[in-house]
Amino acid sequence: MKECLENVRRKAPLVHNITNYVTVNDVANVILAIGASPIMADDREEVEEITSLCEGLNINIGTLNQRTIEAMHLAGKKANALQHKILLDPVGAGASALRTKTALSLMKEVHFDVIRGNVSEVKALALGSQSTKGVDADAVDVVREENLQKMLFFAKKYAQSFGTILAITGAIDLVTDGEKAYVIRNGCQEMSRITGTGCQLSGLISAFLAANPENALEAVAAATCAMGLAGEIGKGRLLEGEGNATYRNRIIDAISLMTGEELEKGAKYEIR
Amino acid sequence: MKECLENVRRKAPLVHNITNYVTVNDVANVILAIGASPIMADDREEVEEITSLCEGLNINIGTLNQRTIEAMHLAGKKANALQHKILLDPVGAGASALRTKTALSLMKEVHFDVIRGNVSEVKALALGSQSTKGVDADAVDVVREENLQKMLFFAKKYAQSFGTILAITGAIDLVTDGEKAYVIRNGCQEMSRITGTGCQLSGLISAFLAANPENALEAVAAATCAMGLAGEIGKGRLLEGEGNATYRNRIIDAISLMTGEELEKGAKYEIR
Amino acid sequence: MKECLENVRRKAPLVHNITNYVTVNDVANVILAIGASPIMADDREEVEEITSLCEGLNINIGTLNQRTIEAMHLAGKKANALQHKILLDPVGAGASALRTKTALSLMKEVHFDVIRGNVSEVKALALGSQSTKGVDADAVDVVREENLQKMLFFAKKYAQSFGTILAITGAIDLVTDGEKAYVIRNGCQEMSRITGTGCQLSGLISAFLAANPENALEAVAAATCAMGLAGEIGKGRLLEGEGNATYRNRIIDAISLMTGEELEKGAKYEIR
Repeated sequence: MKECLENVRRKAPLVHNITNYVTVNDVANVILAIGASPIMADDREEVEEITSLCEGLNINIGTLNQRTIEAMHLAGKKANALQHKILLDPVGAGASALRTKTALSLMKEVHFDVIRGNVSEVKALALGSQSTKGVDADAVDVVREENLQKMLFFAKKYAQSFGTILAITGAIDLVTDGEKAYVIRNGCQEMSRITGTGCQLSGLISAFLAANPENALEAVAAATCAMGLAGEIGKGRLLEGEGNATYRNRIIDAISLMTGEELEKGAKYEIR
Repeated sequence: MKECLENVRRKAPLVHNITNYVTVNDVANVILAIGASPIMADDREEVEEITSLCEGLNINIGTLNQRTIEAMHLAGKKANALQHKILLDPVGAGASALRTKTALSLMKEVHFDVIRGNVSEVKALALGSQSTKGVDADAVDVVREENLQKMLFFAKKYAQSFGTILAITGAIDLVTDGEKAYVIRNGCQEMSRITGTGCQLSGLISAFLAANPENALEAVAAATCAMGLAGEIGKGRLLEGEGNATYRNRIIDAISLMTGEELEKGAKYEIR
Repeated sequence: MKECLENVRRKAPLVHNITNYVTVNDVANVILAIGASPIMADDREEVEEITSLCEGLNINIGTLNQRTIEAMHLAGKKANALQHKILLDPVGAGASALRTKTALSLMKEVHFDVIRGNVSEVKALALGSQSTKGVDADAVDVVREENLQKMLFFAKKYAQSFGTILAITGAIDLVTDGEKAYVIRNGCQEMSRITGTGCQLSGLISAFLAANPENALEAVAAATCAMGLAGEIGKGRLLEGEGNATYRNRIIDAISLMTGEELEKGAKYEIR
C-alpha cells in the first residue's frame, strides 16, 4: 500500500473528472491533497482533448444531464482508445431510470477499470433494481460482519460479470477483481453524514490507478484504505464543539499529510 | 421547537433540491448536519422520479437556466400531485426579469408551502419591483425594530395573497401564514458575509417541513431559529485570527451538534 | 495599496461572476471576505441585466460550455457598453482548442481591463500553443528569479499586444500594463495545492478594480499582494496536523480580517 501512495506523490498524475456540481470542489481538493492534479471539463467539444492530456478519467453520474451524458461517452471512448485508467461512480443508480440507464449504457460502450459505488447502486447495475433510497445505501443492503460471506460472493460475481474491479463501499468495504478480494475495515460511520466522501474516494481511486497502472487491484484497495484511515484520523482530531463541517476539513487535511508508512500501518484489511 | 428538530433527526426525511451551483455543497451538508438526507437532481428526464422518492422539495432559482427552469416546473407539479412539502427560494427575484418571471410562473403553476427570501426578493414577487441590489437585500428594505409593525403587516398580507407560509429573513426574521407570525431575533450580522446562509436555511426549512407536515408554521419557525442560533454559537466559538471561512464551518458544526433542548432554550422569538 | 483595499471595503462593489462550478463557492466567499458582493448568473436571458446592476465583471472560462460561452460574450459586450471593469481568467487556455479559441474570441469582441492567468495560459493566448499541462502551469514556464528579466519582457510585450493589464501569477507574480510592472513576491508554494486560489485571485482583482477604477494597475497589484499575503498569514497559522483543507479556510479567513495597514506592510513588491 505504501508504494501505491508514494507513486501518486511521485508521479503526480493528471486526472480528468466529469463529475457532479455538488461535491466537485471536494473532489478537486482531495486529488490535490493526495499529490495528483485534477482537471474538470464536461463539454463535448473539449472532453476528448482534455482526457488525452491526462492519465486517468473519473466519471461520476451525479447531477447528470443530457449534455454531460454525451460528454461522458465521448471521454470514456477516448480514454479507452488511449488505454487510460477509467473509473465509473454510478451515483444514484437505481434512484432514477435515467441514472441506471446511463450507467448501464456507459458500461456497455466503455470499458471501466473500476466501478465504485454503495451496495444499492451496484445492485441496481446488476439487477436493474429501482429500490434505492436516494443516493445513500438502503439499510438492508449494507455490508456487515453477519452477511459478509454472502456479500463477498455477490461482489466477486458482479466483478466478473462486469469485467472490472468492483469497489463496494460502506461500513465494510469490498474491493475485488472477481478472484481476489480485499475486505477493508477502515473508516467510521460519521463519514456518511458528510456529502461527497464517496465522490472523493472515487477521485482518490482514479489518482491511485493512474499512478499504479500495473498494480490496479492493490491501488484501488490502497485508495480505499487511505480514505477510511483519513476518516479515522480526522475523527480523532475533532475537538469539543466541532461537528460535520470541521470533520470534512479534517479528512482532507489527513489525506494531504498521509505518508506511505502511515497508510501501511493504518490500513485494516484482509484478503479473501 | 424541540419536537420539530427531534422529528427531523428521527425521521431523517429525504429532500430533493434543485438549487444553484454556488452554494449547493453547503445546502447538502447542512441538510445532512440536521439529520436529513439531500439529493440533488435537475434533469427533466429524472426530476419527477427523484422527487417521488423524497418527502420534500426545495426549489432555489439561483443560477437558473432554461434547462433547470423546466425541471423546476416538472418537479414542482409532481411534488404537488404527491402532496409533498415544497419550498421556493426566489434568489435574486427583482435582480433580473428572468428570475422574477420564473418565480412568478412557478408560483402560478405550483403550490408552495413556504416561500423564503429576503425583503427585496419578496417585494419583487409582490410588486414586480426590479430595485433589488444583486442577491442581497436593499438596505432600505431590511426589517428593523423601527419598521417592524409595517413589515409584519406586509408579511401577513403577502402570505395571504400568495397562499403560503412566508419567511422573510434578515436582521429580524418574520415567519407567517398570514394569521399568526413568529418574529425571530436569532442570528448575527456576520452571517450575511458568508455566501449561502440563506440557501442553507431554505434547505433546513425543507427538512423541518418534511419531518413535521402537520405542524408547518412552527417547523418553519424552528428551522429559522436553528439557523440563527447556529450563527450565534458559531460566532461565539471563533478564536482570534479566525474569519469568514472558519465561521462558515462553525455554523454547520453547530447545526450538526444542536439538540432539541438547545434549540428550545436558544430560540428567541415572539408570536404576533 | 492601503487605499485600494479600503476602497473595496467602503464602496462594497457588486461583482458579476460567470465562472466555473469547481471553485465558484470559494470565489463568492473571497469576494464577500474582502468586503464586496458577488452575484453569479450565466443564462443568456439574464446576464446583460445582471451585469448592468454591477460595477465589475469577472469572466472565468473553467468548465465552460456552449451555453455559458454565449453568456460570456453577451455580458462582456454589455459591460463594455457600460464601461464596467472586466477581467478575463483564461483557465486552461492551451489545454483544449475550445478554451484557447473561446478566450481569443472573447478578447476580440470584448475589451478586457485585466487578463489574469498562469504563464502557460498567457503563452497559449499569445502563441496559440497547446502545450499546457492541464490547468496548472508547465514547470519550465514558471517565473523564477533566473528568468525574471526575460519573463518581464514578455509580460510587457503581451500586455501591449493584448491592450490590457496582464497579471501572470505563479511563484513570482508579474502585473503590468505594458509600461510599468509590479514584481510581486508574496504567497507560498502550498497555495498551488488547493484548488481555486487562482480563481479566487481573479475574483479579488475584479472587486479591487471595481472599487478603484481610476487606479487600475495599482488595484490589480494590490489584490495580487493581498491574495499572496493571505497565503502567508494562513500558512503561519496552521497547527500541527492541519493540512490542505484547513489551509484553504485560513486563506479566506486572512482576507476577511486584512486591514489596509496590514496589506501595506506585508506587500512585497518592486516596480520595474
